[in-house]
Order: sequence, then structure tokens, then C-alpha cells
Amino acid sequence: MKLAVFNDFRIGVVAGHVLRDVTGVLPSELNLVPAQRMNWLIAHWTDYEAPIRDRGADDSVMASAIDDVTLLAPVPAPPHIFAAPANYRKHLHELGARSVSKGRTAREQGFFLKAPGSIIGPGARIELPRNSLRRFDHESELAVIVGQGGRNIHRDDAMKHVFGYSCLIDGTMRIEPGSGEEERTMRKSFASFTPLGPYLVTADEVPEPHALRNRLSVNGEVRQDANTADMIVGIAELIELVSSVLPLSPGDVIATGTPEGVGPLTVGDEVSIEIDRIGQMSLRVHSADVVSPRPF
Amino acid sequence: MKLAVFNDFRIGVVAGHVLRDVTGVLPSELNLVPAQRMNWLIAHWTDYEAPIRDRGADDSVMASAIDDVTLLAPVPAPPHIFAAPANYRKHLHELGARSVSKGRTAREQGFFLKAPGSIIGPGARIELPRNSLRRFDHESELAVIVGQGGRNIHRDDAMKHVFGYSCLIDGTMRIEPGSGEEERTMRKSFASFTPLGPYLVTADEVPEPHALRNRLSVNGEVRQDANTADMIVGIAELIELVSSVLPLSPGDVIATGTPEGVGPLTVGDEVSIEIDRIGQMSLRVHSADVVSPRPF
Repeated sequence: MKLAVFNDFRIGVVAGHVLRDVTGVLPSELNLVPAQRMNWLIAHWTDYEAPIRDRGADDSVMASAIDDVTLLAPVPAPPHIFAAPANYRKHLHELGARSVSKGRTAREQGFFLKAPGSIIGPGARIELPRNSLRRFDHESELAVIVGQGGRNIHRDDAMKHVFGYSCLIDGTMRIEPGSGEEERTMRKSFASFTPLGPYLVTADEVPEPHALRNRLSVNGEVRQDANTADMIVGIAELIELVSSVLPLSPGDVIATGTPEGVGPLTVGDEVSIEIDRIGQMSLRVHSADVVSPRPF
Repeated sequence: MKLAVFNDFRIGVVAGHVLRDVTGVLPSELNLVPAQRMNWLIAHWTDYEAPIRDRGADDSVMASAIDDVTLLAPVPAPPHIFAAPANYRKHLHELGARSVSKGRTAREQGFFLKAPGSIIGPGARIELPRNSLRRFDHESELAVIVGQGGRNIHRDDAMKHVFGYSCLIDGTMRIEPGSGEEERTMRKSFASFTPLGPYLVTADEVPEPHALRNRLSVNGEVRQDANTADMIVGIAELIELVSSVLPLSPGDVIATGTPEGVGPLTVGDEVSIEIDRIGQMSLRVHSADVVSPRPF
């Protein structure tokens, strides 16, 4: 099933170029905290999968063209975003001395966090801090959405905890020589630096998540073109790693790392990400109406 | 006002050694997402302050002894925990080469994130990963709880965005020579590594947040004894810094950094934090029933 979040955090089931609004299947109490709807649905999926599937396929429910709604991130307010550093072999080589990670993978470094407040959906735009002299990069990633939570999950059981997948662009402000070593979590947490979407595709539709082509292009020029087969630390091992530190929660997002081809984004660019079986989205890069108090 | 969260995320108003349950003042819809109650209350404080104050002072409402309830963290599920690195002058000196921060403050490094899933309340226990050979440290901090959110908040307006304060222990797994440089956000995000409490004290009760004695002791021995007057980057400037990167949300927690005296915690210890006007809490240190897949 392809799930979308749209307009004022309504939930839809996507079929081709249309979606059907299934928000009414969920308890009306959630209208008080609409940004939490998807987390709640994931936590209660066992009870809601069938009625949502039925409503999503009900021809008597009016369908809306995807183009007529505003798509938000399919998990707009995850409890956490965990991210794997340097998780593709070829990307390790291009990182070089530019990165604080110095080429070590999640197995050595562990995970880092991105702020959930940096998430945007496919209908929004990436905004670079105005008056900045810094370089901002795109990183194309497969996002894993956690279903059932848990602590200390063994890698052999880990895939049962995957609810689904989405496309994620990990926006990053690069460290530059002489600028000092700012916190990585901050450099990756600017508002709009985590585009997520276009949909959440449930795990049953992605039987082989380690065999997906993952492409990112800027203004039509392919910058990243890799396959999730080249991940160093796989999804099950990432789940084992994160859950050895703290419990995973329904709706948590795990960004699985980016392949080679990371490059800069500048104002006016159109950036597109496409992952097999998951979907495709394009976003424009704008200048933020925010002037930083420091020279980012 | 002193607000507590207790038992199954109920909300209470504290007066001395008792509290009155004011959960019934809030919309019953929140019973579906009880961990979100405090965030929602903070976001709607303008409408709810008066009825909550009235109920909290109503002698006809039965009061419970604090000792008879289980206190949870007063903000159990903040959207974010932002944290200031190396924010006290004397602590800068003791950090030395041990820290990746190398003595730079939030003004140079920006903030880092801790996982909200690492939060526990005063009724819980700190759990160190079992079978670990690593050193785990306590850091005693004043926590700022964000009220009204916003982006790009100027320091001159920042204090209007403070909802209140609490005590926060920032648990940290130290980097050790030869262990590599694991991600700081992971080393500080183990479950139970962010005790928060005992209460949320609203800002009107803390007119001078930069003049509070902040003490932490282990087994009765004072380890940290400082004053928030010694912060390098003050609360208003931290709010300006964080909100220049992404919007602040109601319920966000800002950990303002730790003073000198950071030291190790070991299983069996009792650690106590006390901050003037905010409160005091003591927690036991246990061994977690979790075996890490790597030798933390």
C-alpha cells in the first residue's frame, strides 16, 4: 500500500495518479493532534490495515488527483530521525578529509540524529539560509520507517520492525576549511533539509529493499545513481545498532546513508530523487526568508 | 506554577509535597495520545493557564502525596532536545583533548541533538549498558522548555518564548583513546541518559534564570557546584541560535550546558541534581538489561 499525508495532515491511499482520503477511518480524537495521525496509525496498524485498505480501494469514495492536493511528508512528525554515516563504499572515498566522519561507517561511528523539524514534503521547497557563503549538498537516501518499536532487536528479527520505505534527501551544510567543526546534527537540521516522500510504501510491496536503484538528479543532470545493494551496514544491522542504544518507536525514520555523487545545491536548482518501487519527487531550491545571526 | 507529569502521563499542579490532578481540565481527546498532553498544553497555555491554576489550588480537589505517585519527566516527549556544547568557562578547561568539541562553545559549534527517547523522569533509574568497558559521565544542566515556537527569533525577544525550566542530567558515554570517534548524538542518546525533572517550573517563578545555583552530587559527595551566571552563551542567545536553523516548537527542550566537575557514574551510585527555584531529584544507577551488540 502507498500511504500519503496531504493538506492538513489527512491520510490518503495512493493508486496511480489519484488518492482516496481515508482519514475518516481513524479515531476523530486525532483531529486535535493531526501531525501525530501517521505515528498513531503506524502504532495501531494491525487493527487499521484492513479498513484502510478497503476504504482506499472503494470506488464509491471520491478520488482526488495527486496534483490537486498538497503532499506533506508521509511521516511528518517522527519521534526521531536516525541516520547512518558514510554507508556506501564509493561515497567513503569521496568524503576524504572534508568530513568529520573520516570515512568510518555506522558500524564504527554509530548513528547520528537529524531534527524532525527539518522534514518537508514533496509539495514544499528546500530553503538555503540567505546570505550564506557555505556549501550545501544533497544526499540521496532510502528511508526506513519503523513499525513496531522495541529495544535490543537482533538483526535476525529486525525486518519485522520495518513498516515501510520512502525517499529522503539528506540536506547538509558542509564543513569548510577554517570554519571550525560545527556540530553535524546542526549542519543537517536546517528547516527543509529533510525532504521525505512522496509516499510511504509498506514493506510488503518492497520484498528486496537491498536491490533498489536510487537516483538523484539536479536540473535533469544525474548526480547520484547507485543501488541499495551497495550499502555497507544493511537495514537489519542498522535496526540492531539503533535499538541497542534506545528503544525504537513507531514512526521513527532511519536514513540509511548516501551513495557517491554528493554535490552542491544552489538557489534555483530543481532536485529530483527516485528510488525503485518507492517513488519519485522533485523539489525546487529557494533562498530562505531567514537571515542567520552568524555567517553560515 | 510547578507542573508535573505522573503515572500514565497525567498532569498535576504541585504545591509543596502534594499535587492535584488537573488532567480533567484538558480535552478528553488527548487520552488517545497521552504522551503528547504536555506538548499540547504548552501550545495552548494561553487558554488553559487560568483553569489549570484554579483546579490546582482547589481545596475540594483531593491532593496526592508526591511520594504516592510515579513522577515522569515533565515533558516526556518533546519534539526535540537541543543541547549546548561546552557552555561554562571552567568546564572548557577540563574537557581538554578528551572531547571532540575541543573546547569550542555553542557560538562556534552550534547545538547538538539528543534523542527524546533517552528521557526519563525522576521516578525511573539511569541504566548503563551491560558488559560495557566504557566510561559514563554525569553532566548537570538547566533545561529550558520552549513555549511559543518560532523561527529566527532575535535574542531581544527570546525570553518571551521560554515556557519554563527543569533540571536535566545529560548522561554521556565518553570517547576513549583508541575507540574511534563515535557520533556524539549517539553517545548521549542511550535510553535513560536524559533524566528530566522533577517538575516544570513556569518562567514567571524564575525571574532571573542566570542566577541559579546548580549542584550535582553522587552518593552525597558534591561533584558539580556552579551558577548559571557562568554560562558563556546565555539562554536568549541559544534560542536565537537554534531558531536561526529551524523553527522552535512548543515543548522543545534546550539543555544549556554543564559546568565543571563532570565525573563518572557507576552501577549502584545515587546521583542527585538540585537547581535553585527549580527543584531536586535523585536517581539510582543500574545496569541495563540490554546487551549491546558492540562493546560499548
